[in-house]
Amino acid sequence: MISPLLTDLYELNMVQAYLDRGEDKEAVFEFFVRRLPPRRGFLLAAGLEEALTYLETLAYSAQDIDWLKHTGRFHDNLLDYLKAFRFTGDVDAIPEGTVCFPGEPLLRITAPLPMAQLIETRIINLMHFNTLIASKAARMVLAAPGKILSDFGLRSAHGAEAGLFSARASYIAGFSSAANVLAGVRYGIPVAGTMAHSYIQVHTDEAQAFEDFARTRPNGVILLIDTYDTEQGARKVVDLAPKLKADGISIFGVRIDSGDLIAHARKVRKILDDGGLKDVIILVSGGINEDVLLQMKAENAPIDGFGIGVNLDSSIDAPSLDCAYKLQEYAGIPRRKRSEGKATWPGRKQVWRAYDLDGRMAGDVLSVETDKHPGETLIVPVMRGGRRLAPAPSLDEIRARAARDLARLPEPLRRLEQGVTYPVQVADALVKLADEADRHTAGK
Amino acid sequence: MISPLLTDLYELNMVQAYLDRGEDKEAVFEFFVRRLPPRRGFLLAAGLEEALTYLETLAYSAQDIDWLKHTGRFHDNLLDYLKAFRFTGDVDAIPEGTVCFPGEPLLRITAPLPMAQLIETRIINLMHFNTLIASKAARMVLAAPGKILSDFGLRSAHGAEAGLFSARASYIAGFSSAANVLAGVRYGIPVAGTMAHSYIQVHTDEAQAFEDFARTRPNGVILLIDTYDTEQGARKVVDLAPKLKADGISIFGVRIDSGDLIAHARKVRKILDDGGLKDVIILVSGGINEDVLLQMKAENAPIDGFGIGVNLDSSIDAPSLDCAYKLQEYAGIPRRKRSEGKATWPGRKQVWRAYDLDGRMAGDVLSVETDKHPGETLIVPVMRGGRRLAPAPSLDEIRARAARDLARLPEPLRRLEQGVTYPVQVADALVKLADEADRHTAGK
Repeated sequence: MISPLLTDLYELNMVQAYLDRGEDKEAVFEFFVRRLPPRRGFLLAAGLEEALTYLETLAYSAQDIDWLKHTGRFHDNLLDYLKAFRFTGDVDAIPEGTVCFPGEPLLRITAPLPMAQLIETRIINLMHFNTLIASKAARMVLAAPGKILSDFGLRSAHGAEAGLFSARASYIAGFSSAANVLAGVRYGIPVAGTMAHSYIQVHTDEAQAFEDFARTRPNGVILLIDTYDTEQGARKVVDLAPKLKADGISIFGVRIDSGDLIAHARKVRKILDDGGLKDVIILVSGGINEDVLLQMKAENAPIDGFGIGVNLDSSIDAPSLDCAYKLQEYAGIPRRKRSEGKATWPGRKQVWRAYDLDGRMAGDVLSVETDKHPGETLIVPVMRGGRRLAPAPSLDEIRARAARDLARLPEPLRRLEQGVTYPVQVADALVKLADEADRHTAGK
Repeated sequence: MISPLLTDLYELNMVQAYLDRGEDKEAVFEFFVRRLPPRRGFLLAAGLEEALTYLETLAYSAQDIDWLKHTGRFHDNLLDYLKAFRFTGDVDAIPEGTVCFPGEPLLRITAPLPMAQLIETRIINLMHFNTLIASKAARMVLAAPGKILSDFGLRSAHGAEAGLFSARASYIAGFSSAANVLAGVRYGIPVAGTMAHSYIQVHTDEAQAFEDFARTRPNGVILLIDTYDTEQGARKVVDLAPKLKADGISIFGVRIDSGDLIAHARKVRKILDDGGLKDVIILVSGGINEDVLLQMKAENAPIDGFGIGVNLDSSIDAPSLDCAYKLQEYAGIPRRKRSEGKATWPGRKQVWRAYDLDGRMAGDVLSVETDKHPGETLIVPVMRGGRRLAPAPSLDEIRARAARDLARLPEPLRRLEQGVTYPVQVADALVKLADEADRHTAGK
């Protein structure tokens, strides 16, 4: 459980000011991504279940209250408020695994103002990162149809939680497994792993290293063959296979982690095939991203699977999304920010999605919730009065939704380059509401 | 406490193989950064104290063991080993807050092979991210001498731990504060915060919003003035000040978060000065990175402080460092990896640093530990037999070391562009050891 003090100080400052003034009427905040990073055509929503769990469990311990008290910054009314705090608001959201676009609210909080403000920092922290990684992983999945993709990125992820969330978000997007054991414990994600170069190096004989490892792990062993010479490594695997087979041990695959991966894979495939090991798969790792995956596909490289590390877990080409958690309505009146270059649409919104005859997404309409448009509505109620309306969906259900939505992406959006912009139409009703919101604050 | 199962599966696979074969002689691993990201000239070491705490506390609960047992992947000898596991090895390291360079070991682990292997993933995870952020923050500190820098990045950090570590690593590098309350609780870092646009928006009158906030927080209040019109916001602050002053409340600063920050700051400075508020500071936020800071300095912008978010916490221009935790020696014999493009130097290493007459760093020598060179030795013993040799230094001591080292950087390395490469000479003794290591594995 993460401490409730994992938040920006200004949330507490504002809640203090609201409590002092009795400013606790109903507020509506929405979380959305402002714009896509370069080369991106869509987002894959993720983080909602983590956000709901946060809201369900958020509570302040006596030590938390003591610490706040000793800062001398806060009055007793705030300390009492936090002592008794439970989230009792409403949440509406686009389910995890849904393809979505900038400006579309991924999550809406409706709660008394201090409550809706207090949770801002962590809600953004959870929604931003999970959506970032799911969206990145989806590109990799689209670039490597039918291939095994495994998240190897924990070591270079930005801390513990980044590694854990990356495993979950990439599995949602269609990855096969993760190397992170805790992702298996926490989420039931299939866990996969091979061996490190150090394993080979502690042996003075590479073939002996292979044999020892295979005997320890008689099922599904994957041997790392590039420590000294990749093709020689492959030949040692061929030489070893009959001896292991006699003892009922089969080699599942080999891994190549350096050099020209395509060239090595071709040579290794031939060595394995010629040696009667047609079923032994080839896994590669090291510098794999969606562009490399696409190149591998274009060159028809004989590679069965990919271990993907830092390019996934740090979303290297776009390590953040420009996103916001913005006040949309307070005390029944629509609100919006008009700061230069950062103006937002006010009100409680809904997204309607149309499909073409082939079942591909044909365009979204963004409007106020009470408006009506044809198509599927994306935002659904998920929490009322602080309680989930339904049990959390399983990770496999979320993954199935992602697979369905990725299959429904228009063809140009499935490419790695952003050729076209998916149409998200802002409805007249929303434009009208923005005018109304501006009138409330004009000249103030 | 993070679960010990936050690790890659292959660590457990390898430990299983080592235990099966009784392969438990002394191993030496070193963590180092392979190369600098584009535009970077140096690293600022960080993460060591977190790594030592991890090693001191690493233990497996009965539930952890049960989970591993139920996977059916592991033998009883591994489960027994983990049940009794405590880290009892040695650690030598470059202290946190030290300027260092690629190839220089930031941390060395000496322990029985299974123990030294088991900890790899989390050690890299901790050392990599903390060093990444400290190195990024150091650039910002160098680009903005004498300015207030505050970490505002928790919301867009990659999860909880990334936000927490960013606050710590940037404080080490010379930041003044962080918005993250938990960073104050956990590390004693000064916590700072202003208000969000939503605070202004819930009021129908901006001036009233300012007044309410100032009355709630009578000391050190910073008002956000760009929600509607920045200069009008500044004038409202001027109008409000005498009224507050009569009640003993002074305004500490204003924040601008949008538009042309330099142009707005100039206008706002004039409005404040003309209004008798010469002491009210101007803080800006939104898109601040080291290039922006340098531009602000070049243009002599009247800005006193900066809130820095995603550019810091995600190290946007370089969200990862190419780094490794590599076997250097096993059973008394030097080892190294020779994979294409990834060959490493073997053995237990030391770094000697020379200084010129002005006290600036003049060059490092990388060699085997037993070699002798003039200059300061960077790698020091920090843990023996699993116990720290000294209490953890305070964060302010680490910060003072960073300030000292940043002041000793050669002038060209203080710039944002990498004009020169700092000389790190590989000594003959190390080259000789590499040849020796290769002979051990040649043709194997």
